[in-house]
Formats: sequence, structure tokens, C-alpha cells
Amino acid sequence: MLFASFIYKGDKYIGIVQGDNVIPIKDLIGKEFASLIDLIENFSAKYIALLKDASGHEGIKLSDVVLTSPILHPKRNVICIGKNYKEHIDEIANSIDAEHNIPEHPVFFTKMVDKSVGPFENIKLHKEITSSLDYEAELGIIIGQEGSNIPKNKVHKYIFGYTIINDISARDIQRKHVQWFRGKSLDGTCPIGPYVLHKDSIPYPPKLKIQCRVNDNLRQDSTTEKLIFDIDTIVSELSKGITLKRGDIISTGTPDGVGMGMNPPKYLKEGDKVECYIENIGYLINTVK
Amino acid sequence: MLFASFIYKGDKYIGIVQGDNVIPIKDLIGKEFASLIDLIENFSAKYIALLKDASGHEGIKLSDVVLTSPILHPKRNVICIGKNYKEHIDEIANSIDAEHNIPEHPVFFTKMVDKSVGPFENIKLHKEITSSLDYEAELGIIIGQEGSNIPKNKVHKYIFGYTIINDISARDIQRKHVQWFRGKSLDGTCPIGPYVLHKDSIPYPPKLKIQCRVNDNLRQDSTTEKLIFDIDTIVSELSKGITLKRGDIISTGTPDGVGMGMNPPKYLKEGDKVECYIENIGYLINTVK
Repeated sequence: MLFASFIYKGDKYIGIVQGDNVIPIKDLIGKEFASLIDLIENFSAKYIALLKDASGHEGIKLSDVVLTSPILHPKRNVICIGKNYKEHIDEIANSIDAEHNIPEHPVFFTKMVDKSVGPFENIKLHKEITSSLDYEAELGIIIGQEGSNIPKNKVHKYIFGYTIINDISARDIQRKHVQWFRGKSLDGTCPIGPYVLHKDSIPYPPKLKIQCRVNDNLRQDSTTEKLIFDIDTIVSELSKGITLKRGDIISTGTPDGVGMGMNPPKYLKEGDKVECYIENIGYLINTVK
Repeated sequence: MLFASFIYKGDKYIGIVQGDNVIPIKDLIGKEFASLIDLIENFSAKYIALLKDASGHEGIKLSDVVLTSPILHPKRNVICIGKNYKEHIDEIANSIDAEHNIPEHPVFFTKMVDKSVGPFENIKLHKEITSSLDYEAELGIIIGQEGSNIPKNKVHKYIFGYTIINDISARDIQRKHVQWFRGKSLDGTCPIGPYVLHKDSIPYPPKLKIQCRVNDNLRQDSTTEKLIFDIDTIVSELSKGITLKRGDIISTGTPDGVGMGMNPPKYLKEGDKVECYIENIGYLINTVK
């Protein structure tokens, strides 16, 4: 079950993707929601059967709608994990910090996102302040149930679904401020989408191919099976003493193949097309402007 | 002009402190606001004269109200500055990171605060997960005008006012996750208050005495004149490429005297009374429970 946010004939909708069509959620649940976040904050298990029962609903052709970010305005900073794929740690050795090691504990930081970037929208280049904008394809987890001190074997219950996050990073800014927050939080540098995949649609934990292409050149090509800290560990550890809320977004880290890891580094430039792919979720395609 | 949030006879109010009294803002402006954040988000320059004209308003005795955090639910993560007083950098040398140096650029990180801790409320000890909870008295800036790329000489226009933040930190957690976010974001570890001081009430930049006492022992005793990166630099630098919004809170860093800096370290324990003071803003007093 793929959740989409979209505009059709000037009106905003959320819907469920069915093949080449998308069915407005109000037609299935009989209730209006202001956004996908509003649905997640008010989600009830009884909606699932209603959302799956799309028979008799033709919906709207996807080719007739404009997709928007499924979570246009995240309610809190996106929580990110750094250094969570071994090959990525190898490739960035000495680039971001002096230590080249597998972390003993997840490295959490945040990305402030007032307005995320939707499918086919532009990533902002910020050429006045950075000369090293980089891509990071990541599996994003959306929290579906409020909780703290979540045991590892209960984490699955607290997840609503998954999406793709492109954790665009200004490497020079990330480095100069020591803590990574500012280099990760520039306006227009958090593409999310194209859809949110409901957790029940795939086996848990998700073992999904993850890729990133820049101008059709394959740069990242891995699988979420390679996470050093898996989703159970990330959510359980993060929630010790911290209450996670419905709609919180956790971005699980990026595999190897980022621009910073190349020799010489290949950073993003104006006009570049960046395409992040995760199996079962789709393609998140953006242009750098 | 000091803004307070309080409960009186079971109802929530925001008000202006006048001596021993507090005058509800709806009596002055003739309009209801759900919270101080709501007022800040909808603030208009014409309110200032109305708020100052308290004559004829007796208000409510402060002794008859229960103060609450002036910003109970910050809309976004509190943005904090690390290592911003020289003597504090000296005292924590080798405690948090290997580098003992004056940073070349402000060190920004965030503190996730769902619900802040108000005056006289309890700081959560979290003894199951940390044995090194520490205090950090800090001057907090509240943004009053949305903006990005704010030049240094315009920063003052973008400020609404000031408050006290106690940036309670779990040192062991802060250290083990490398990036500081998680150790700074435990539930119930962000006291804010007791009031928000309007920027026009004091000369700019603020030169204010800042102190922290634990069980009446003076631990921190400095002045905001000693900030390494001043407010103009912090806000201007942070806003390059990042849109700051009304109600955003920026905590400007703590002076020397934290528990971690002592030999041996003196961390907070159950029952400790922590009292943060900033001249013209007041006393933010909390107990560790």
C-alpha cells in the first residue's frame, strides 16, 4: 500500500496508489485529512481494511496529477543516522571527521526541514555558501505510534511505513561547524518521496535494494540489509528516555557511493538530475537548481 | 517587558509581569492567543504600545498563579551552540571530544523538546540510562521575524526576546553517540523560563549576568558579554541558507562551572535544586526527580 500526496485540478489530496491510478483517501475512509501527517496522527487500525478495499474505485490517473512530497512539512526535525553502512564509512575516511571506525552506537543528528522537496521538484544548490553539495539516498522510517523505551522486539509495531529520503549535505559546512546539523539543514535540501509504503506491504525487517543515480550514472547501489544498526536497534536505542511521536521521520543512513567518497570528489552542480531508488517505494527524482 | 505563561483558577493565560502582578494579555490587546508562541507568530508592532500601557489594569497577583514554561511546546528543535565561552572550553578539555580548541565557527546542534520544563517543575533524572546528568545555564534567543541570510547588522530586528534555557545534558549519552543530539534530547530535560524578556527592554547586545546554583552553591557565574560568537554572528551565520521562523529558540551556549568540568565531576542527583539566573529575566528553579 503506497500513500501519495498530490494536487489534482488545483486541489490537494492524499491517496492510495493502485497501478497507474491513485484513489483519494476520503473516497475510501469517508473522511477528510489535511495531509498524510494528519492521517498518521489520527490513524486507526480499522482504516487498513478500508484502504485496501479499492474495488469499485477507479480513482485518478497518476499521469493527471502532480505528486507533492508525502510529508511536506515534517512536524519535527528529521532524525538522521550517520555512518551506518560499512562501505560508506570506508569511503569517507578522513573526509568528515578524523576517526575512521565503525561506531559502537548509532550516530544520531538532525536535519531541520521546514518544507521538504517533492518528486520532480528542485534541490537548491546554494552556490553562494557551499561548493560541495552531496547526495545521500536513505531509507526513511515514519513512526506510527507514540512511545518511549521501545524494546527491540516491539519496534515493528511503532512503525507506520517507509519512504525515500535524499539527505542532501553541504560537506564544507558540515565539516566547518564540527556538529553536522547546519550542513544538513539548508533550505530545499530534503527530498522526500515519491510515496510512503505502509509497513504491512513488505516483510520486516525490510530488505530492499537502494540506489542513487546522478545524470543516469549509477553512484550508490546497495541494500538495506547492510545497515550496521538495524531498524530495531535504531528505534529502540533512540527511544530510550525520548518519546517518539506519530509522524516522526528517521533516516537510516546512506550506503557508499556519495560524491565525497570519490577521488577526486564529485559534488552536485547546477542541472544535475539526482534519482534515488528504493525497491517497492519507487524513484525520487530531483534536479539541482 | 516580561512575558509569562501561567495558570489561574484552572485556566491558561499569557500575561505581562508588572511588579508583583501579572496582567493577562487579552486585557491589554483585546484579543485571545492560545500561547506565547501564538502571540509571537502573530505579533504586530502595534501591540507594543498596548502591552506597555498597563495603567488601569490591576492584573492578578503572581503569588496566586502557577507559572508554566513560557514556551511549553517549541515548534521546532531548540538550536543550541556548543563551546561558546572560553573558560567552559578549558574546563571540558578532553571530556566530550578530543579537541581542546576555540572553534573557528559556531558549533550548532539541536535539542528535541516535545514539552519543556516550566519554573518549579521537575527535571527528569533518567537514572536507568545515564549517570552523568549535567546542567548548563544559557541565554536563549527567541526569533520574532522570519528570515534567512540575515546580515549581522540586522539581526536585532529578527529577535523577539530572551529567556533562560537550562540545557540539561546526559554526558555519557552525549559522548557515546559522537554527535550530541541524543544526550541533549531526553524527555523532561529542557527547563525554559521563568519569563521571556522583550528585546526592547534592554540595550543590545544584552550584557547580562548569568549564574547557576545547585543546592544554593554557586556553580556558574559569568556574563553574556563573554560569548565567543555573539548573537549577531550566531544568527547571521545560522541563517545563511536556512530560514529561521518566528518562535525558533536559539540557546547561545553555557559558561564554565558545569558539573563535568569539576574534578571529580559533580553530576546531578535526585532531589538537587538547580537554579539558573539571568539578570533582568529572573530565576529558573527546578528540582531533579
